[in-house]
Amino acid sequence: MAVLFPAHPGFRGPMAPQRLECDIFELEYEGTLPPALEGCFYRCGPDPQFPPKSTDDFFINGDGVVSMFRFRDGHVDFRSRFVRTEKFELERQARRALFGGYRNPFTDDPEVHGADRTTANTSVFWYDGELFAVKEDGLPHRLDPETLETRGKLRFEGQRTPHFTAHPKFDPVSGELVFYGTEAGGLASSDIAYCEADGHGTLTHEAWFEAPYASMVHDFALTQKYVIFPVMPTVADLPRMRKGGAHFAWDDGRETWLAVLPRKGTAKDVRYFRGPARWSFHTMNAFDEGSRVHIDLTVSEINGFSYLPNAEGKAWDPEKARSYLTRWTCDMANDSERFVEQRLSAMPSDFYKCDPRRATLPYRWGFMAAKDPDAPRVPGAPDTVFNTVAAIDHQSGRVHSYFVGAASVVQEPVFVQRSDDAPEGDGYLLAVVNRVAEKRAELLVLDTADLSAGPVATVKLPIPLRMTFHGDFVSGAQLGWQDGKSE
Amino acid sequence: MAVLFPAHPGFRGPMAPQRLECDIFELEYEGTLPPALEGCFYRCGPDPQFPPKSTDDFFINGDGVVSMFRFRDGHVDFRSRFVRTEKFELERQARRALFGGYRNPFTDDPEVHGADRTTANTSVFWYDGELFAVKEDGLPHRLDPETLETRGKLRFEGQRTPHFTAHPKFDPVSGELVFYGTEAGGLASSDIAYCEADGHGTLTHEAWFEAPYASMVHDFALTQKYVIFPVMPTVADLPRMRKGGAHFAWDDGRETWLAVLPRKGTAKDVRYFRGPARWSFHTMNAFDEGSRVHIDLTVSEINGFSYLPNAEGKAWDPEKARSYLTRWTCDMANDSERFVEQRLSAMPSDFYKCDPRRATLPYRWGFMAAKDPDAPRVPGAPDTVFNTVAAIDHQSGRVHSYFVGAASVVQEPVFVQRSDDAPEGDGYLLAVVNRVAEKRAELLVLDTADLSAGPVATVKLPIPLRMTFHGDFVSGAQLGWQDGKSE
Repeated sequence: MAVLFPAHPGFRGPMAPQRLECDIFELEYEGTLPPALEGCFYRCGPDPQFPPKSTDDFFINGDGVVSMFRFRDGHVDFRSRFVRTEKFELERQARRALFGGYRNPFTDDPEVHGADRTTANTSVFWYDGELFAVKEDGLPHRLDPETLETRGKLRFEGQRTPHFTAHPKFDPVSGELVFYGTEAGGLASSDIAYCEADGHGTLTHEAWFEAPYASMVHDFALTQKYVIFPVMPTVADLPRMRKGGAHFAWDDGRETWLAVLPRKGTAKDVRYFRGPARWSFHTMNAFDEGSRVHIDLTVSEINGFSYLPNAEGKAWDPEKARSYLTRWTCDMANDSERFVEQRLSAMPSDFYKCDPRRATLPYRWGFMAAKDPDAPRVPGAPDTVFNTVAAIDHQSGRVHSYFVGAASVVQEPVFVQRSDDAPEGDGYLLAVVNRVAEKRAELLVLDTADLSAGPVATVKLPIPLRMTFHGDFVSGAQLGWQDGKSE
Repeated sequence: MAVLFPAHPGFRGPMAPQRLECDIFELEYEGTLPPALEGCFYRCGPDPQFPPKSTDDFFINGDGVVSMFRFRDGHVDFRSRFVRTEKFELERQARRALFGGYRNPFTDDPEVHGADRTTANTSVFWYDGELFAVKEDGLPHRLDPETLETRGKLRFEGQRTPHFTAHPKFDPVSGELVFYGTEAGGLASSDIAYCEADGHGTLTHEAWFEAPYASMVHDFALTQKYVIFPVMPTVADLPRMRKGGAHFAWDDGRETWLAVLPRKGTAKDVRYFRGPARWSFHTMNAFDEGSRVHIDLTVSEINGFSYLPNAEGKAWDPEKARSYLTRWTCDMANDSERFVEQRLSAMPSDFYKCDPRRATLPYRWGFMAAKDPDAPRVPGAPDTVFNTVAAIDHQSGRVHSYFVGAASVVQEPVFVQRSDDAPEGDGYLLAVVNRVAEKRAELLVLDTADLSAGPVATVKLPIPLRMTFHGDFVSGAQLGWQDGKSE
């Protein structure tokens, strides 16, 4: 009885499962590691522990792996570990996949009925002195920030939603954590649970409301005054799931609805702004300007996942799937039920970050993975992969960028401020690049003061690193490291 | 301050340090895993923990890494760990190389003077229910056979030699372990300590004798009646070391001397047989035939390491460094002081194994890594790498072989008998192959009943595996696994 992953491109070449739990001590690097990097860069992404039950399984259904680049005293170490979810542990014991398709429990083996299906494969965040890995269909899993061992789940006292977004927001003014759960009332329900917690583990707000339809709400937006949930036509459907079909399908017969609530508001406060069918994975930032709410996010005409079915059977169009940094504006002072859309950059982009000190506030700098469309396609990689690290200056509208090289794929760049009192956006971007032909990864350290100059330091790995989704940098001070005392 | 390995080919391309301590659960495989493989295949090889103190450092000076393919119930898992030698631990604490050149303590940092320099990077063996990793300049390190954690060193009660060979022999008739230490009396001394132990941890014999000159005695030979130490002109020199030079240099002004002792003999029993300057890394087997002692080993005209200096400054000649399976015969009944040399195969070869049940005895089958000289050179790899798994039938003289493919490098094949009562040589060969262009390794399982048919199973790794030296297979029964009880 062979053990083999499916032969389709999602499991071959640069997308091949890697499944390494590993330690590499004292990574090679060239250049100079800036003192600002004292701390750990964590990343989260999918890697299937076992060949999937169905050969048409896809990338985002893999089990969560968290990796760490640990920067200390001019040294860099690497570690990666699977998140020990209930799904992971049950399957490890069985030594095979027991859980079926992406977010479809009807495709699971009967013996795991009712078990927690989340893979915790999407993002990491740091909250109240702890590190968490999370996917939007479950609760965050707590990880030891040094060993990456899994240490239970995060559920606030009194919290009703069983789900948590992979993109929680932090209010830098109040220190609050803002999150939400979709399908909060059950599989394919349109209930969204909007939650806030203080900075120290206490849930302060949980309000449920019903969205116009059940959709994937992968990210949201937060300002000082408002919280915005974009409901876009990546639609969940229970009868389809019961037949073993996809959790989500793209249905561009529907409009995009932005649910805008005042902070700490409830269902009765929801106001909708509508627009054409759109898709967005990620928000860069949002802010208030008088009565207007601006939301900067990546926007495409259809869902970017080629493997998501189309509700009407239309073929997936890669051109329409390209996503661009876009500003949606809702004016709370007028009666319009429509939001205004403005494209901010002509370069396809996604995987956004802003300086966390300016999150929810008017801001100047946004960071992103972008695509130079003139660069040759990377062999074996999807056409959607990125090859450029970019920063947009919203003051001038200018995009500064660094092309990471031919046959190379760049993952989400993560911003690290140069110092606590550095100006907004002044610091470094950390971005993992896979050199596809060489089958080795590098971590580039780019200085935002001169992005196009290329890396100030290049950390080298002896292996490629499988594509991840999102990462975060946690400083040595946050980690409780003592100055001058090496581990 | 950058951290970088030297740019020369010994640290680049297929030879690049990897330094992974990793776990991969449930490796992919194609084909059928035979029931005989229930157990663990362990390998040992060098991988430098840190960039070396000198840029002309070379491959064999790397720190010992032991890896394990664990076969159980049709599943294969992989694990690799550094051996925690004293050198490893001191350098880890310092986060840099403190020890200098290969077996030259005069090149070390003063603060580690007197510390155990061994890297335990050469081979693994199973003795008295325990697993050990060893290099010939130190004692074996005990490893947990499941976790690969290091658990101290092996030194028999009463043992005087501070060194242990990387190629101990097991007498299948008596169950004895036979080993030796070179330079036993101190750096560059010509003392060889010949030792035997029973199968249960008791040293039964230790006899020291002085070799004609201090040389690298990397392997030796054992029959039921004799033990043979080949002294060949890879010569150790203390004054050269004191000047920071190499431990060994090739000096073909000297002859090869075979020191032949009766089993349990002492210095007074040594009889020498001489021959032209030769080099051999490894013995396949040895046996008695009447008064004659046959030693089957790989033989080249000069030392195979291109980076070893030549005592007279001659350039290293790759043609002369090619090594071939050769039989040396000493006739104990006549007065000749010369041994007789006969080449057994025209194919370059090394990394020998025989069926352990026939070790020290007349035998039919020998196994080896060999080189098809017509295959194109593997880009980036030394010319000396092997591309073929071969078995010689000494009864017919015929060599059966399997070419592992273009741009591929094969490591030492390890024999596993089909069953306890299978005929000699009937079973499987396990051989790691690096697919250099794809940068992935495979473990081939070849059936000795039809080697040229190719693998009956191919285990696939998501990464390449750095070249190792030697391995061993330890059965589930030896490991104390209970039938039908999975971990």
